[in-house]
Amino acid sequence: MRTIRVELGERSYPIHIGSGLLKNIGAYCQEAGFALRSPLLVVSDSTVAPLYLPQVEEALRSQGYQVVTHIFPAGEASKSLAVYEDVMTTAIQGGLDRHSAILALGGGVVGDLAGYVAATYMRGIGFMQIPTTILAHDSSVGGKVAVNHPLAKNMIGAFYQPAMVVYDLDTLLTLPPRQVSSGLAEAIKHGLITDEVFAYWCREHAEELLALDLEALGYALELGCSIKAKVVGNDERENGLRAVLNLGHTIGHAIEAVGGYGVFLHGEAIAIGMAGSALLAAKLGRDRAIYEETVSMLTALSLPIRLPEQYSEDDLMEAMKHDKKFKEGKMTFIIPEAIGSVSIVNDIDEQLVREVLAQLKKEDNPW
Amino acid sequence: MRTIRVELGERSYPIHIGSGLLKNIGAYCQEAGFALRSPLLVVSDSTVAPLYLPQVEEALRSQGYQVVTHIFPAGEASKSLAVYEDVMTTAIQGGLDRHSAILALGGGVVGDLAGYVAATYMRGIGFMQIPTTILAHDSSVGGKVAVNHPLAKNMIGAFYQPAMVVYDLDTLLTLPPRQVSSGLAEAIKHGLITDEVFAYWCREHAEELLALDLEALGYALELGCSIKAKVVGNDERENGLRAVLNLGHTIGHAIEAVGGYGVFLHGEAIAIGMAGSALLAAKLGRDRAIYEETVSMLTALSLPIRLPEQYSEDDLMEAMKHDKKFKEGKMTFIIPEAIGSVSIVNDIDEQLVREVLAQLKKEDNPW
Repeated sequence: MRTIRVELGERSYPIHIGSGLLKNIGAYCQEAGFALRSPLLVVSDSTVAPLYLPQVEEALRSQGYQVVTHIFPAGEASKSLAVYEDVMTTAIQGGLDRHSAILALGGGVVGDLAGYVAATYMRGIGFMQIPTTILAHDSSVGGKVAVNHPLAKNMIGAFYQPAMVVYDLDTLLTLPPRQVSSGLAEAIKHGLITDEVFAYWCREHAEELLALDLEALGYALELGCSIKAKVVGNDERENGLRAVLNLGHTIGHAIEAVGGYGVFLHGEAIAIGMAGSALLAAKLGRDRAIYEETVSMLTALSLPIRLPEQYSEDDLMEAMKHDKKFKEGKMTFIIPEAIGSVSIVNDIDEQLVREVLAQLKKEDNPW
Repeated sequence: MRTIRVELGERSYPIHIGSGLLKNIGAYCQEAGFALRSPLLVVSDSTVAPLYLPQVEEALRSQGYQVVTHIFPAGEASKSLAVYEDVMTTAIQGGLDRHSAILALGGGVVGDLAGYVAATYMRGIGFMQIPTTILAHDSSVGGKVAVNHPLAKNMIGAFYQPAMVVYDLDTLLTLPPRQVSSGLAEAIKHGLITDEVFAYWCREHAEELLALDLEALGYALELGCSIKAKVVGNDERENGLRAVLNLGHTIGHAIEAVGGYGVFLHGEAIAIGMAGSALLAAKLGRDRAIYEETVSMLTALSLPIRLPEQYSEDDLMEAMKHDKKFKEGKMTFIIPEAIGSVSIVNDIDEQLVREVLAQLKKEDNPW
């Protein structure tokens, strides 16, 4: 087992990564300090619950915990205030008190939703992330929790750190291929923003990663989580540096909002967004090779890099205006300066972004 | 103008109390550090908005702020997730960004709801409390923000401190008498928990307070806010000492939940609750004189001390089980030890609380 620590003063916590961790989840809850006398609520979705919930419940009960569960329909559409209220109802009816904790068993949607409930049930109770997707290596670290508003993604939320992240690699073996690629998009993003060697390593080991080789995957997730933990440790509430993690996300979120959540998987949308950021970089005078390398890496991981024709520039621009990265009337983008290095650029001209969107639709050569 | 400081490290903030402050609200927003380039959202209700919103908007605009407003129907029923979502929609459509702030213009319902939006819109933006009731001297200080769940009051919320509280005493002159008494219930509560002299002062000056004498009121609110600020400064997230502020609230919240929010005003419900706590204290062996003095103080302020016959003990006990003060299967109460002194007692027997509820219904002598 590998353990990474997210350093946030009194809110610091460990990320455990390894095989066979689910069967010891009761012991991890003890380690996290969750009271035995107060019920635990395990939140999961209709995809993950049938696979892993019985095992988790059994492990918790055998440790002496009382367990309440809430299962909601899988998919981004569930990251809504309506489902949030449903989970709250389960928590109240299940008798959760201020010493209870909520366990998020699933991918990013489960973690974001359950985390937002944990952050706000009785003004905040204990929380543990148990990610079961590759994508969630990103969302489960750093304390950003949220639900979507019909007008914009992740608009309603909080910064709320888990007491622990327990990452059982065995749960990744059941992931469908698109989900694997989507998750690897965030992993390679971590390389693209701060670690050139890791970014190239991902391209070189794309085949093993896509084949879910646990050795390669464990390494990629450890690196990805470490980079994320370091960035978050320096800027928990995104006052500055943390924004670099948004590489590809301004365009990516707009694609998700315009296409409808769930048409493109999150990692797919931000892959197109990262290709767009590299194009934007070239327009701002950075080396065109950054774009060529970026798309070669994304393509190696079976990720899309082109915007489908039906996405109109007007709709995408409008969606970006509701995005949190739109600040005081100016557009902010994370711009690659090289592979493994980015900068935060404010005051980006709207017209330039429009041009990039048009070019992202070109099948062969976007120039 | 009197200014009190709530000391919470980097989250410290001032409470300004005085006459004629609303017309300078733009300057206060500057002092609070709210960016001129980002829109402000003023949230108010259908009672307060017609009286003070035009003046506030004018003051903000003349300072150069762009202003968005949201007015919802007055009353506790609006402290719901549905109205919360409506305010979020207004914020998004109004173009609020991460540098925007939300101003709560109104009583406790407005402050709690607007504060919860501020705490969670884009994971937290600027927030200012502009209380217009006496009751809100309590709720606007200390950073507890929340909405109600149909099953329990204040169940969904956060700890989120405002950047400033601006308390214009002139707004209190339009309050109806029941609201005045209700607000004074929280003021005298602050005396009952930590300041014997202030508690007796409230009884002696009950007539001036009920007549809205601004000199007496200013003093009472300064003392009330100071006591609250001190308690909160020592225990922001209610890990211990802060719980003393809940004197009368366990029974009070149950009365509100069973009767329906708004049948009893909040201060009326906790007045009955405080009488109940003093009865409970007597049952636990404390001096009966505490009860006699407490009810005499409450009665002087025209507050109720009796539970109406139609409130069943079963319903009230059930409601308390959903209350946050119910911890790991045991009941916790704040018990008066003397006038101006309380203790936190866990492990209170359910049967004892039932007896107190029954006795609270007796018209003359509850013993």
